[in-house]
Order: sequence, then structure tokens, then C-alpha cells
Amino acid sequence: MAIEIPLSEFRERIAKIQKVMGRENLDALIAFSNEAEPAYVRYFSDYWPAFETAAVFIPQSGDPTLLIGPEAGTFARSRSKIEKVLSLADFRESAQPEYPGLDIATWHDVFEGLSIERLGLAGFHMFPHTIYMNMTKALGDAQVVDADNIVREIMIIKSPAEIACLRESARISELGFKAVVENIKPGMTEVQVVSLATAAILGNGAEAVGYPLWCCSGPNSTQAVSRPTHRKIQEGEIVHVQIGAKVAGYSTSVARPIVLGHCPDELRKFMQVGCDAENLAIELMVAGARAGDIAKKVHGFITDQGYGHTILYGPAHGCGQMECEWPFIESTSEVILQENMTFHICMFLGDKHQGFRFEDCIVIKDGPAEQLSNYKREVIVL
Amino acid sequence: MAIEIPLSEFRERIAKIQKVMGRENLDALIAFSNEAEPAYVRYFSDYWPAFETAAVFIPQSGDPTLLIGPEAGTFARSRSKIEKVLSLADFRESAQPEYPGLDIATWHDVFEGLSIERLGLAGFHMFPHTIYMNMTKALGDAQVVDADNIVREIMIIKSPAEIACLRESARISELGFKAVVENIKPGMTEVQVVSLATAAILGNGAEAVGYPLWCCSGPNSTQAVSRPTHRKIQEGEIVHVQIGAKVAGYSTSVARPIVLGHCPDELRKFMQVGCDAENLAIELMVAGARAGDIAKKVHGFITDQGYGHTILYGPAHGCGQMECEWPFIESTSEVILQENMTFHICMFLGDKHQGFRFEDCIVIKDGPAEQLSNYKREVIVL
Repeated sequence: MAIEIPLSEFRERIAKIQKVMGRENLDALIAFSNEAEPAYVRYFSDYWPAFETAAVFIPQSGDPTLLIGPEAGTFARSRSKIEKVLSLADFRESAQPEYPGLDIATWHDVFEGLSIERLGLAGFHMFPHTIYMNMTKALGDAQVVDADNIVREIMIIKSPAEIACLRESARISELGFKAVVENIKPGMTEVQVVSLATAAILGNGAEAVGYPLWCCSGPNSTQAVSRPTHRKIQEGEIVHVQIGAKVAGYSTSVARPIVLGHCPDELRKFMQVGCDAENLAIELMVAGARAGDIAKKVHGFITDQGYGHTILYGPAHGCGQMECEWPFIESTSEVILQENMTFHICMFLGDKHQGFRFEDCIVIKDGPAEQLSNYKREVIVL
Repeated sequence: MAIEIPLSEFRERIAKIQKVMGRENLDALIAFSNEAEPAYVRYFSDYWPAFETAAVFIPQSGDPTLLIGPEAGTFARSRSKIEKVLSLADFRESAQPEYPGLDIATWHDVFEGLSIERLGLAGFHMFPHTIYMNMTKALGDAQVVDADNIVREIMIIKSPAEIACLRESARISELGFKAVVENIKPGMTEVQVVSLATAAILGNGAEAVGYPLWCCSGPNSTQAVSRPTHRKIQEGEIVHVQIGAKVAGYSTSVARPIVLGHCPDELRKFMQVGCDAENLAIELMVAGARAGDIAKKVHGFITDQGYGHTILYGPAHGCGQMECEWPFIESTSEVILQENMTFHICMFLGDKHQGFRFEDCIVIKDGPAEQLSNYKREVIVL
């Protein structure tokens, strides 16, 4: 039996957000997603778009509607935990096929029979301008407000089912990394290293990779976000591996640098500082701690070790459906950690010549965090 | 030596679009992309974002600027064929980290020293509303117009280098499909079938998969767009396989239905009509033909065979960097085919119980089209 979120939990999510909408005087909510960032739509409906975009429309009381593009009819209906599904032209591919003859709904159909004075929009910073214009035209004088914060409020504490999905995702991500450790060889390309991990992830029960996986080696290892190239990996340099499995919509991430052959002492020291910084972050991340304080302490440790110039951000961020979700553990954050929040420690360090990330998923507890992955969290020289 | 687009061609693209901008009285152009639809940004810069979004800013004369998010600095600079690169907060992840202390540019820096009265926006239907508001605030009274059509005008005819990328992509896509044909077995999950193709694609020279690949089987095969599930494939049902490799930014797609074991006659006939319809479309797609006429003839053939009710759209669409690009071969289209346009025949047919797609990439010629893939374009019963 595959691990999944039960139907009852999808219904509870709708009830929860409707309660918060009442408090915030929102008559309705639109939660938007695209192929690259499917979290909001999947959270409420279990559907996640490909090629097209999608949204969930939730009135303050009553049943929600899943809004999809014209090609996803049977796909969306087979996945959706929301019964009512409408196709709108606005959610078609951005290349804008015309679909002559196809029966397509309008925003007026979505809002029919409702009196909306204030609408919340989640996925606020992704929502396309042209869709915004079409939607607000149908809404008339209604006010549209950023609702990312209210959806985050109900998403931020994970349920036992959500944590089970993340735990399974982390187990499979580790298998992906193990496949790399056991098969990586000098002369392979970065893409081929990713191929090893991807095959292991898809072959061992993930539904997909959690994000575009990468390996970046040598000079490419300075890239905090990257994509793999055809560069051949070599001995004595950092080969950074960054992988993650998606399970029932939930994505973890495991990242480690690997050195093949001889590892220069200076490089070994640099990587050990990153590894120690990750362990320190995990130690500090307990319920009741303030995000900004954690960031300052971890960055202080790295600076004390002589590597302050290699800090780009971090040292952690929320996770769940997306590999990277709000909140961020950064010096300006006032967020107080609570039990069953989930985070990726995302310990990226990089100078002008090389860099790496140590990354693992943890669940916040009153005591020490539950570590969902820890395979070979060490300086790896093969 | 990996197949790639030469630097000179990137420069020619900028010069070409600047010429068209002159004709259209555009003082500047913004070409936007996100992780799922990277085409516009990659076309002009060779960079393609992950997690973050990006844009290319092109003044009517002078040098372009690549606009990226705060985490992609070293990644983007290592890829970009455009020298000037600026990080803007607007192109960060939609979860909105704050990046305290990081030096970030503003829209005023982008537009500095230029007098812009009319700005074209490509990726018009993807461009986020909040970025639009920030950008237009910095633009003052300037008019912003949809520029998808003018970028399409220069993208639509492919160069020899672009066709070489597509040819290599199709070769690797066929290897992916061959790996499926040689290893598929009843009882595998849809995800595991995708895993076979993905490993072969990444292991044989692609830089990535061209889109989220899928296999959909039995009742799931009705899905024109889909994602693979953990459903176990069975004998005697359609197992639809939909895969494609990305090479230097260019994506082809190969799609076929497979039946394992005994194939009922009725199903064989249905699939043969789809296969014949694809071959008819290829025969009709020659330089000088009108898109709408092709669509009507192919749909007429399918209807004459008794399968008119299984048509959803099609039968083809442009391709290049995206698996699906404008123009669409649909009945309302007045587009006249020209030599070196490239298309995916995208022959999807589906009724209430089952469906499939035959898909291959072709290059339009004065005579018969060049078929970049044709491996096992037949009713496949294994």
C-alpha cells in the first residue's frame, strides 16, 4: 500500500482554511500553482499540473472547485480529491492553443451565485498578470489580497500522514544517494551521476523527483542552485550531489559533496566545517527556538572557523510539498519553531573556486529533532 | 564534442529581435521564463532557471542584460551567453526568502539611462502579476505590450544548429523508448516504466528530460496530459509511454501506446487509426500547406474511420526549446508552413475507457518532411 494523504485530511484542510478565511474576512480564496511549484493546488486537491497551470477556488463556506486547463480533464479528475472540476482557458499552456470547439468555463462560472467583496490569492507571487486581469474583471469591485501567509499558517505544522510521506521520501532519497556512492567513477559526466540517483529514486517507490536534481563538480560546485552539465567529474575536486524523491506530493532533499581519490587537507577542512555547521543547526533547531537566533549562531560558528566569506544564506528553510517552503531560518526571521514543523538544513558554503551543500530533512520536536536522513553525513572521500 | 548552439548564433538572435523591435516601435523587450517554461530566457541567453525565475532585458540598441534571482549568481554566469547579469529580488523563489545582507539590484538599475516609452513583454501569459506591478512602477508612463508574437516570429524557423540539437534529442528519445520496449514487463508500475526511459535518456547524452515524462496505463490512458502513478501495468491494456530528451535546450518527444500480451482486435484497430492519422499528418505537412487545412483533413480521416468522438485537439504543434510551442495545427489556424519549421505530430485519441498518443518530431521541407524519429511507429504488441 502506497503511503498517501487520506481523503479525510484533504477535507480537513478545506475546513481549516475556511475557518481562517472567516477570521480574515475573506469571502473566497484562490490557491494557484504551476508545473514547477505545484504545492498550493496539490495541498488542497492532490492534483498537480503538468504543462498547464491550475488553481483551487475555495468559498468561505461550501464546496471548493478545482480549476484546470483544457487538456487535463481526465488527468485532473482521476487525481482530484475535490469533486467539482472546471476547465478555464486561462489555465492552458502559455503557448496559447485555441482548442476550437472545446467546451470551456469562464471566471463568471467560477464566481456564479457568490457575493465576493474580498478574495485571498495564494501563490501570490507566481500568479500570472494576464490571469489576474481576467479574474479581477469578473470579480468587479472586489478587493484581492495576498493570502500566502494564511495558507502557510495551516501548512506549517505537519500532520502524522505528512511526516510519514516525508519520512518515506527521505528513505528513498538516501537510496538515490547510496546508488551514487556505490557507482560514481571519475570520467562520468555530471548528468550521468544524476542519472544514477534518478533511476534509484524512481525505481524504489517515489512518484517523481522532487525538483530538478543536479550534480555540479569542480568549478561548477560554486553554484548554490545548478543544473548538471556534460562536464566529466575528476579526482581531487568537489563533486556535489543534490537529490530528492517526491512521495505523495512531499519532497525531501539530500545533498553532500563527494571527493574521489585524494582529498587535499584544506578541502577536507572546508567540508568538515560545513558538516559541523549542519550538525550545529540540527542541535539548535528545537521547539521554542527563534529562527533568527539559530541563523546567527550557525553563521557565527562558520565565521569563527574562518569561512564567513563562504556564507550565501541559510542555514535552513521549511519544507513539505516543495523542497523549499517558507519559513526561512535567516538572521531577520522572528519565527519561533514549533513541534512538527519540518525543515531542510540547507548548509551551502562556497568561495570563488568551489562550494558544496550539506542538506537533510528534520522534524522539529520538543527535544532533539527527528532526523529523516543522515546517510553518510560526513566528509566523503571515495 | 557536445552538440550546442554557437555563441555567434546567440548574438544573431539579439540582433534579429532588435531589428523587429525597431519595426514594432519597441524601445525595449523583457523575455520571461520560469523553471517549467525556460524557452524565452534560454533562447536569448542559454541560461535556464531552476527554483527561481529569470528574464532577458533587451534594449532596442545596445547590449542585453540577463536578470536572475539571488541564488543563481554563479550558476547563471557560468551558463549565460549574455555578459551583463543582474540579480533582482523579483526573480527569487515564490516562497520569498529575504536574503539579509545580499546585494540586489532594482528595476531602476535595469532601466537606467534608457528612455522607454513602449516595452514588449514575451512570456506574456506567464509573467507574475506582482513582478508586473514592480516593473511598471519603475517604467512610469511606458506602455507594456504582449511581445510573444514578435519573439515567435524569429524563433519559428529553425537554424541548422537548432535542427542538429533536435535531431540528437530525437535520437536519444528513441533510445529511451527502446529501453522501455526491451525491458517493460507486466507488474511494473507506471513510474518504473518512466524510470527505464529516464535512465536511458540521461545516460546517453541528454542534459535532462524535456518535460515531466509519463506512462499512463489502462483507465489512466485516457489522460492527454498525465503523470505516472504506482499503478501496475497489465496485459491486454494500453500502456501509453510519453518521453523526450533535452539537448542543449531543445526537446523532442516520442509517444507510443504499447500492449503487452494479447491485444483485442478492436483495440488494435483504434491504435492503427491513430498511427495512420500520424502518417497522414506527416504526409500533409509540407512547406506551403495551411495549418487549418491539415487539421481538417486529418480529423476528417479519423472521423471517417469512426473515431471522430475520440479527437481532443491537434494533430500537431510547433516545437523547439519547449516540447510544445506555437504554432498549433488546429482547424482555426491560418499559419502557412515554411521550410525548417519544426513540429511534433501530437496525435492523441481517447474515448471514455482508453486513449493514446502517437508523437514524433518532424522538420518541414519543400518536399516530404524530415522525420527525426520513427522508431516502432506501428501498433506495438509485445
